[in-house]
Amino acid sequence: MTASTGMSAESSAVINVGLLGLGVVGTGVAEKLLGKGSPLSDVAGRPVQLKQVLVRDISRPRDIDLPEGMLTTNAEDILADPDIHILVEVMGGVDSAEGYLKQGLAAGKHVVTANKEVMAKSGPELMELARRNGASLLFEASVGGGIPIVGCMMNELAANDIRSIRSIINGTTNYILTRMAHERTSFQQALGEAQQLGYAEADPTNDVEGIDAAYKLTILASLGYRQAFKPGDVYCEGISKLEPQDFRYAEELGYAIKFLAIANLNDGAVQLRVYPAFVPAEHMLAKVDGVYNAVEVDGSLCGKVLFHGMGAGREPTTSAVVGDVIEVVRKMGSQDQPSGQVGVEPKNGTPLAVRPIGDLEAQYYIRLEVADSPGVLAQIAQVLGDGQISIAAVLQRETHHETQSAEIVITTHPAKEASVQKALEAMAGLPGVKRVSNTIRIEE
Amino acid sequence: MTASTGMSAESSAVINVGLLGLGVVGTGVAEKLLGKGSPLSDVAGRPVQLKQVLVRDISRPRDIDLPEGMLTTNAEDILADPDIHILVEVMGGVDSAEGYLKQGLAAGKHVVTANKEVMAKSGPELMELARRNGASLLFEASVGGGIPIVGCMMNELAANDIRSIRSIINGTTNYILTRMAHERTSFQQALGEAQQLGYAEADPTNDVEGIDAAYKLTILASLGYRQAFKPGDVYCEGISKLEPQDFRYAEELGYAIKFLAIANLNDGAVQLRVYPAFVPAEHMLAKVDGVYNAVEVDGSLCGKVLFHGMGAGREPTTSAVVGDVIEVVRKMGSQDQPSGQVGVEPKNGTPLAVRPIGDLEAQYYIRLEVADSPGVLAQIAQVLGDGQISIAAVLQRETHHETQSAEIVITTHPAKEASVQKALEAMAGLPGVKRVSNTIRIEE
Repeated sequence: MTASTGMSAESSAVINVGLLGLGVVGTGVAEKLLGKGSPLSDVAGRPVQLKQVLVRDISRPRDIDLPEGMLTTNAEDILADPDIHILVEVMGGVDSAEGYLKQGLAAGKHVVTANKEVMAKSGPELMELARRNGASLLFEASVGGGIPIVGCMMNELAANDIRSIRSIINGTTNYILTRMAHERTSFQQALGEAQQLGYAEADPTNDVEGIDAAYKLTILASLGYRQAFKPGDVYCEGISKLEPQDFRYAEELGYAIKFLAIANLNDGAVQLRVYPAFVPAEHMLAKVDGVYNAVEVDGSLCGKVLFHGMGAGREPTTSAVVGDVIEVVRKMGSQDQPSGQVGVEPKNGTPLAVRPIGDLEAQYYIRLEVADSPGVLAQIAQVLGDGQISIAAVLQRETHHETQSAEIVITTHPAKEASVQKALEAMAGLPGVKRVSNTIRIEE
Repeated sequence: MTASTGMSAESSAVINVGLLGLGVVGTGVAEKLLGKGSPLSDVAGRPVQLKQVLVRDISRPRDIDLPEGMLTTNAEDILADPDIHILVEVMGGVDSAEGYLKQGLAAGKHVVTANKEVMAKSGPELMELARRNGASLLFEASVGGGIPIVGCMMNELAANDIRSIRSIINGTTNYILTRMAHERTSFQQALGEAQQLGYAEADPTNDVEGIDAAYKLTILASLGYRQAFKPGDVYCEGISKLEPQDFRYAEELGYAIKFLAIANLNDGAVQLRVYPAFVPAEHMLAKVDGVYNAVEVDGSLCGKVLFHGMGAGREPTTSAVVGDVIEVVRKMGSQDQPSGQVGVEPKNGTPLAVRPIGDLEAQYYIRLEVADSPGVLAQIAQVLGDGQISIAAVLQRETHHETQSAEIVITTHPAKEASVQKALEAMAGLPGVKRVSNTIRIEE
């Protein structure tokens, strides 16, 4: 290895880090990497220090005091510096970040990234690039913040065949659902509160429509099944359709409503899905409140292991990023070359198929607004019977005198998604049915 | 490196494993390691196979078919075989196991062990031996079965200063407490059931007196604080003193009773303790039922991360052992020498003191059997007041007409353990107090 690959450091020499981005997380990471004699160097076994930081605007006031000359607006100052051994990317977004990561890996630099979007869309390509260049590529912070789920999927749980991953991996939406459950507020009101508290962005689409969760699920599934999945493989339904009465019925039926990201393997095919679901109230996932995240991995040997913790925020994300930096430095060990270990190798053999959502078999909660007149329930039951969908429970409530409407809630026994969707269409066409208000899957 | 160190394997050559012990866990591990083309080799990146297994009695019938000649009763067949690269120890106990591990490490063999007793008593010494001989020493299975807590303490959470570890790490006692809480059975009856189900041993001392939990806590604390603690540093109280009414009062006061193993750092000193404690009913630890384990790590960056899963049993333990084998093989990488990385380096600087239990500051639940006569509560309150112990709540119940006794339950605000112990002695000497029935710490 030559100096141009950035690997000229000797055993006791300082490992230099180049940081791309100095936002909330970047500032947290910078604080941990400042100073040669930091406790971090002690843990990593070698001195580690921050050498250069890429920002958009040098003059912007910041929460952190950095040494003169450490900031740059020119990425090349970092990417082309042979003395920078590790790139830490906490910029977010895809446009510039992906190019920087590729350039860094191609130069043999190790990469630590918190970028779920890049990892979900281009993770396999980046891993291959890392492998070819003898570099490490670590991305613990891309999923679950301070929860060490990425590393565990790569390493500690590697002896397992993964049966399923069920997770709450978006703190914004878990906060909104927790508010809706406890205060019976509307979605709009809970979203507004989340925005005021800084938990939700001005444009909340990525969170509430499940795009963020789908990125993270793509990463977890790719690690768990050791195969490259794409965000487009994930079936996605957001939470904006939920109404306060759904939470009331859920509680009455013994469930909580949680925004789940699920991957499971069945008959050689993987199903990837993100949607709000009924979860039994006594299940650990039902108890995950506020901005917390949780991931339940069901492995062939370990059984169900649940991880619970802070899924976002400056410090939990810094925990993940700096943990990865330590791992990279430890892997660099006492040799003058990287280990080439990127933590995950693709599986040999036939790739697993992605099962379409229509093939899902689940139980369903269906809420309907119907005319308050005789025979409506019989018509609905007939439609379900025609579709071979068996009814588990029926609740009829809340006659609105002014609108002459009633609300019917039906839960089903396990049924095929395609049949249920067909039945829902048929129901919507019934003369007595005013509206199919909501359909929510039940995950036992 | 020469063949005599066991490191003669080339990049694509088979990695040979020597297995010490073929009990329940050993059989699970052997099944995963049998056969060169196993999926395990795929995950580890190199072919891995079982070469030899140490047993006490070759002729004993077993659940597993092993190739002719794979069993031996002579440890030297494994320890002195230069072609065996990894020792996997699942014998348990200290006597022979420790010697075998030392001999293996001294010969440069990598070691994977499930042995909590050896790691708690001699872990630091074995780690030093591994370091000197360029060998890896991994012990994920020694704590928490299928829960990847050991690896996470070493690696994924390495960026954190650990504030506390609070854990339920003995499945036998958690099963017993769960039965006592749900069925209001006596300790003896719940223990008998656990024994019938194979969850408790004929001599349950190690589990019910907290010796097993103290070993595991010693390991976790040593990793978390990067300093060698000893089992003797752990203050330990068992669960046999618990009575059904303690569970009734706990529920009434909004708590569950859990057998906790706790390490926390305060003012430069670490306190290590194992005892049954009141845990707020809404806390995740209160919801850990049956033979499940859970570990909550509070780190300076990650905040509180909780791990929940199966803490024992053949398959969860196999998950941990084989995960370690995979890690060792990956670390061996493509070079002909081990990385010398053992996952944890001792911290520089002043060692942390171990804080004695008398210095604990906690809330307390105190249950007393008193004479059903006036003035007794006043006397008790006086004793507490004299010790500067402030009362949070008082319940008086259950007058037994035949014995002229009443039961008083007191909870305190935070107080010093030493003061509480002194007050308990004074209370026991009061004329109106027949018995200090129980004292249980409250962990908020």
